[in-house]
Amino acid sequence: MAVKVLINGYGSIGKRVADAVAKQDDMEVIGVTKTKPDFEAKLAVEKGYKLFAAIPERKGLFEEKGVEIEGTIFDVIEDADIVVDCAPGGIGKDNLENIYKKYKVKAILQGGEKAKFVEDSFNALWSYDRCYGKDYIRVVSCNTTGLCRTFYAVDSVTDIVKARVVLIRRGADPNDAKRGPINAIVPNPPTVPSHHGPDVVSVVPKFEGKILTSAVIVPTTLMHMHSLMIETTGTTRDAILDAIEKTPRVFTVSAEDGLNSTATIIEYARDLGRPRYDLWEIPIWEESVNVVDNEVFLMQAVHQESDVIPENIDCIRAMLQMEDDNMKSIEKTNKSLGIK
Amino acid sequence: MAVKVLINGYGSIGKRVADAVAKQDDMEVIGVTKTKPDFEAKLAVEKGYKLFAAIPERKGLFEEKGVEIEGTIFDVIEDADIVVDCAPGGIGKDNLENIYKKYKVKAILQGGEKAKFVEDSFNALWSYDRCYGKDYIRVVSCNTTGLCRTFYAVDSVTDIVKARVVLIRRGADPNDAKRGPINAIVPNPPTVPSHHGPDVVSVVPKFEGKILTSAVIVPTTLMHMHSLMIETTGTTRDAILDAIEKTPRVFTVSAEDGLNSTATIIEYARDLGRPRYDLWEIPIWEESVNVVDNEVFLMQAVHQESDVIPENIDCIRAMLQMEDDNMKSIEKTNKSLGIK
Amino acid sequence: MAVKVLINGYGSIGKRVADAVAKQDDMEVIGVTKTKPDFEAKLAVEKGYKLFAAIPERKGLFEEKGVEIEGTIFDVIEDADIVVDCAPGGIGKDNLENIYKKYKVKAILQGGEKAKFVEDSFNALWSYDRCYGKDYIRVVSCNTTGLCRTFYAVDSVTDIVKARVVLIRRGADPNDAKRGPINAIVPNPPTVPSHHGPDVVSVVPKFEGKILTSAVIVPTTLMHMHSLMIETTGTTRDAILDAIEKTPRVFTVSAEDGLNSTATIIEYARDLGRPRYDLWEIPIWEESVNVVDNEVFLMQAVHQESDVIPENIDCIRAMLQMEDDNMKSIEKTNKSLGIK
Amino acid sequence: MAVKVLINGYGSIGKRVADAVAKQDDMEVIGVTKTKPDFEAKLAVEKGYKLFAAIPERKGLFEEKGVEIEGTIFDVIEDADIVVDCAPGGIGKDNLENIYKKYKVKAILQGGEKAKFVEDSFNALWSYDRCYGKDYIRVVSCNTTGLCRTFYAVDSVTDIVKARVVLIRRGADPNDAKRGPINAIVPNPPTVPSHHGPDVVSVVPKFEGKILTSAVIVPTTLMHMHSLMIETTGTTRDAILDAIEKTPRVFTVSAEDGLNSTATIIEYARDLGRPRYDLWEIPIWEESVNVVDNEVFLMQAVHQESDVIPENIDCIRAMLQMEDDNMKSIEKTNKSLGIK
Ligand SMILES: NC(=O)c1ccc[n+]([C@@H]2O[C@H](COP(=O)([O-])OP(=O)(O)OC[C@H]3O[C@@H](n4cnc5c(N)ncnc54)[C@H](O)[C@@H]3O)[C@@H](O)[C@H]2O)c1
Ligand SMILES: NC(=O)c1ccc[n+]([C@@H]2O[C@H](COP(=O)([O-])OP(=O)(O)OC[C@H]3O[C@@H](n4cnc5c(N)ncnc54)[C@H](O)[C@@H]3O)[C@@H](O)[C@H]2O)c1
Ligand SMILES: NC(=O)c1ccc[n+]([C@@H]2O[C@H](COP(=O)([O-])OP(=O)(O)OC[C@H]3O[C@@H](n4cnc5c(N)ncnc54)[C@H](O)[C@@H]3O)[C@@H](O)[C@H]2O)c1
Ligand SMILES: NC(=O)c1ccc[n+]([C@@H]2O[C@H](COP(=O)([O-])OP(=O)(O)OC[C@H]3O[C@@H](n4cnc5c(N)ncnc54)[C@H](O)[C@@H]3O)[C@@H](O)[C@H]2O)c1
Repeated sequence: MAVKVLINGYGSIGKRVADAVAKQDDMEVIGVTKTKPDFEAKLAVEKGYKLFAAIPERKGLFEEKGVEIEGTIFDVIEDADIVVDCAPGGIGKDNLENIYKKYKVKAILQGGEKAKFVEDSFNALWSYDRCYGKDYIRVVSCNTTGLCRTFYAVDSVTDIVKARVVLIRRGADPNDAKRGPINAIVPNPPTVPSHHGPDVVSVVPKFEGKILTSAVIVPTTLMHMHSLMIETTGTTRDAILDAIEKTPRVFTVSAEDGLNSTATIIEYARDLGRPRYDLWEIPIWEESVNVVDNEVFLMQAVHQESDVIPENIDCIRAMLQMEDDNMKSIEKTNKSLGIK
Repeated sequence: MAVKVLINGYGSIGKRVADAVAKQDDMEVIGVTKTKPDFEAKLAVEKGYKLFAAIPERKGLFEEKGVEIEGTIFDVIEDADIVVDCAPGGIGKDNLENIYKKYKVKAILQGGEKAKFVEDSFNALWSYDRCYGKDYIRVVSCNTTGLCRTFYAVDSVTDIVKARVVLIRRGADPNDAKRGPINAIVPNPPTVPSHHGPDVVSVVPKFEGKILTSAVIVPTTLMHMHSLMIETTGTTRDAILDAIEKTPRVFTVSAEDGLNSTATIIEYARDLGRPRYDLWEIPIWEESVNVVDNEVFLMQAVHQESDVIPENIDCIRAMLQMEDDNMKSIEKTNKSLGIK
Repeated sequence: MAVKVLINGYGSIGKRVADAVAKQDDMEVIGVTKTKPDFEAKLAVEKGYKLFAAIPERKGLFEEKGVEIEGTIFDVIEDADIVVDCAPGGIGKDNLENIYKKYKVKAILQGGEKAKFVEDSFNALWSYDRCYGKDYIRVVSCNTTGLCRTFYAVDSVTDIVKARVVLIRRGADPNDAKRGPINAIVPNPPTVPSHHGPDVVSVVPKFEGKILTSAVIVPTTLMHMHSLMIETTGTTRDAILDAIEKTPRVFTVSAEDGLNSTATIIEYARDLGRPRYDLWEIPIWEESVNVVDNEVFLMQAVHQESDVIPENIDCIRAMLQMEDDNMKSIEKTNKSLGIK
Repeated sequence: MAVKVLINGYGSIGKRVADAVAKQDDMEVIGVTKTKPDFEAKLAVEKGYKLFAAIPERKGLFEEKGVEIEGTIFDVIEDADIVVDCAPGGIGKDNLENIYKKYKVKAILQGGEKAKFVEDSFNALWSYDRCYGKDYIRVVSCNTTGLCRTFYAVDSVTDIVKARVVLIRRGADPNDAKRGPINAIVPNPPTVPSHHGPDVVSVVPKFEGKILTSAVIVPTTLMHMHSLMIETTGTTRDAILDAIEKTPRVFTVSAEDGLNSTATIIEYARDLGRPRYDLWEIPIWEESVNVVDNEVFLMQAVHQESDVIPENIDCIRAMLQMEDDNMKSIEKTNKSLGIK
């Protein structure tokens, strides 16, 4: 019997989690919530999802606009085995305290929330076992997810001594016409090292003190990019390429094939027929992979809107003890989505 | 029996035409051509299209890269009932003279070619009958296609006295990381009126002297936008909204629903599950539709990569005399693609 | 003796007004106000302006940061002959009610405020006389200022029957890395006609009902652009070019000279040695100027940060009755700034 | 007596070098060359520079357009003590072989040329003495110049063991409306390490093998940005801040002061009254300066259009043996430009 999943916050992440849950044979979407009766709400209903008001006072708004809702979150939460919270960063934590704990329902928060508010931080490769059976877990951010996967590949063939990463972040998601920058580079944060290193450590404690990151924001909407420089105890380019090949949800792309920018990588995802052009896997430029003095160099891109989606599915399986082998869950999720 | 279609130039337009042809029960893709063995070429083969070198001398390039090709265009052209030329603007005309006429095969050129090189200019609503049975026809550009459709809607309920249009054009397609501008507005052409008015007239001769256009290029990749001001002999806002409703391949969107920019319109197409987020129809902002002193005002967006695709399908049907009623062809094409 | 001018709000507009006032032999900057002790505040002090806290409670912030201030706005306002309010849009109106009226000091508001809160709306060519000796006046927005000037040129040689304008607006000022859009076109407002026509009418009442505008926002920071289509009772291209030549603060540029985008126009202002590359005049593309059936077509750009600056200077002269001939004030201001 | 300097190629770099030379009491601009009679050519003449055709066959173009020229480069080259070549990347090398060597005139090439074509690579802090009296020297690129300066500061207080740098490069100069990307991040080159490390080594041979760089291009025109991670034999944050303070042409900026992006840094240069908002110095974010385990972290921006300009002036002095102490030349140049 399928476990019952409620999606609280049907935005960029929420709508993708809903669609991914709907594709699993062991899960079922019992409802999605919205705060506004906009086009996303209408499409949710058209798709057949049961729609609920995330904020009871806003229920009237939906009725005024003729968008059919089934009630508020409080009319459905008790039926849920788990809630996937996809509210904007910072609100998930409030929902955890005010709703999920009160209703004693398991909940997943997203990467916009701090590690300290939950029991543990999830990545399917690294912390599946630790999150097994837990109640309140955070699926880490798109950037942290991308880094965790690549570090896993490297860690599988050598030991990481110290990693330095520069993150070049997209300014806004593609559907957001309000946020900038239009024509600037923004050191964000301006302090170095940035919080991205410690966020990786929340998933992989053994990397404590070993991941040093800095980050800037640039005027693009498509993807983040990372430049990684990873000192190891010793490895080769071939070993790294082989490890990437064997690690789930990372793959190499070649600039020579025309995949020479985040623009053509997105074109590739469009051509693959991916829903919403989602690229759940992390593309790593083959040309960039290099080992100099035991230090691994590589550049990768991160499709911020989608790389965390399969992680949410696996996290549900771990928390609800549906599958005790992380690799089996990963494989099941990948197959359902069409990830090779 | 399905007619045999060859796509010469498997780029932004070509790959979409191929996929659309493949969806028709009365058509068949007998081959697609590429000049380079890049990721698009590889995906074409993976999709099952027979790939040919568009330029014989480049055949070796494909072999070197291990991309399987079936030969060159000259190995397949004689099997084709029609070629859809999707080479870059200006090259279609050369192909017409050097290849299609020589091989006596019917051919469709795209909007990057000039009207004078072909027998007529195609839009499914306006010039289907004129192109019926013809040999060399041009499907007009994305901008002209968008304007023709909206003018058709307006023309269906009143007479157009004079139309003024300002076109705000995307700088480059989303997969193109080379072209700008990054941070500028470019009057293009700097002369007014621009050539876009006469291009509409190539489809609708009765509009001669009545369409006055100017155009700028701006730093965006998603869609073009048009601001239309159409003097008529008399109409009302309701009549125009009703005409839009009844005209194929145009529809209204509402800023109030959150569809308040080209960014959210593309998000809408992604959420609809459209392949490559293609929006074959022209969205017109409901809020912008207004009639003041018999002049219709409205703003619309144009998804440059895809609005001409259904037109290419209908154009094949007209040229090969497969269906003599344009509205039936339009309906058949729309149904195959999932356009309501 | 020089009149005493206080600048309330030393931001994009305020710092330029201060520098322009400082260049006049009949005016003196007695102070500028800031709400935060940032780099602009520090540079104001370095330049020799007396700095005051715009908001008394924030005084401490400046002291903490070691930025020397002379007190708060209330320590200087009684010395002022006039205040030029350059606070963010909407706040000027509050300052008018809560401060300027109470202290009985004349005040200029900027274009972010509504016409109805002041006695009249100012443009040096059109409404200097009407504002002469008045107490509370609004210098209209950058877009409205640009339109008023061009309409003045056209109006000087023919009669305007109806004008249609599409405004393509910059998304954010160049110093603003927060606002977008990054990659979208935003109809803003989505309703047509937009408020820009009525704003011109607040300056030129005889244009009531004759100016129909629509507007979009695009991802650029440098300049706005306008496409104008002006029906007249009759004129010629030469007459219009001549009128532009004779009208102050508008001039023609030629795409053929390389001035083919807002990017190269700004480069031109940089090369001219303009402070902050300010282009106080409205550049009109010579190639775009055309007359078809008595309708004038042209495209112009607007340097949003600076075109209103000379207007503020002339407005001070009008309100304080320092010069009763608008053309003499314009000439004096232009000479002081280096406008030919 | 002033040395005679000819500027070959009056573009982004050339026009700035000309203006900087004109400000030196020991140098004189005897001519500037252009290939097209555009607005830059006209302004050169208006400024009083003698204009020559860079390419003799193009002389007619200038005459047609009524732009006064004094002849071709061959009419002036023999009068020059030195030519500063500012032609587009790659052309300088041809000019060196075909013109400068033939006419036996000393010449400076710019950073778009390869190191191997000249005798040495110039940075005023590092290689002034080596270039003293030489004939053919290259002033290194904007990025390399920025890195050389910061490494000099660090090297002045500790020893550099290994430096890793990620360069986030502007896509096009602000006057360029043709080049993109509009909405993408481009790994450029996609191989790691990039050529930027070896380019630093061409100036500072002792860094051989110690500088490892990677680079991406992003959609911005204002400045490049660098994230530096420099392993040293030991130092402190205070020592580094002190070294920055003492090193010419680098300085710290504070995000807390509002200088929190390249956009506000450029605003700062505009507010300083810099010609064309040129920021000849390298701004380093104070907040970003940090030392962890003897590794220096910092983020800096580079104003690509101007940081090499003072270097060109010092390079002239070295090559013509006008001053044998590099620090004296630096000081003299800085004073002439207004660099503190
Ligand atoms: N977009 C990304 O790139 C991305 C990537 C990884 C993780 N995340 C994280 O995912 C979370 C969601 O981000 P998003 O980009 O989907 O945001 P979003 O703004 O696209 O969607 C948030 C949704 O939550 C709804 N909402 C608002 N208040 C709510 C409330 N009180 N209760 C329930 N729902 C509410 C909104 O209506 C909206 O539909 C954040 O923590 C974010 O940091 C985002
Ligand atoms: N992209 C748009 O927005 C758009 C919209 C409407 C119409 N069009 C028109 O469609 C046509 C194709 O444009 P596109 O955007 O698809 O271009 P594109 O550059 O994306 O694709 C062109 C394809 O043609 C191939 N090609 C190059 N030389 C060729 C040759 N000699 N023979 C055959 N193929 C060759 C290229 O390899 C490439 O695959 C042009 O006329 C263009 O003006 C483009
Ligand atoms: N920037 C433009 O393109 C432009 C063009 C024409 C007109 N305007 C108008 O000029 C006005 C100012 O715009 P701006 O772009 O200079 O804004 P800005 O944000 O650059 O500057 C506003 C300044 O006002 C200060 N301020 C904030 N609250 C204040 C208060 N209560 N009292 C006094 N000062 C306060 C801020 O600290 C800031 O220094 C607005 O009405 C705007 O609509 C702006
Ligand atoms: N723009 C930058 O960011 C930057 C920074 C540092 C170094 N550089 C280097 O400076 C050099 C010049 O770059 P730029 O940005 O000023 O280029 P640019 O294109 O702005 O200017 C080049 C000028 O050279 C002229 N020119 C063209 N062909 C010529 C020829 N055969 N002989 C003489 N002049 C010719 C052009 O007309 C133009 O005026 C290049 O080597 C470049 O790599 C550029």
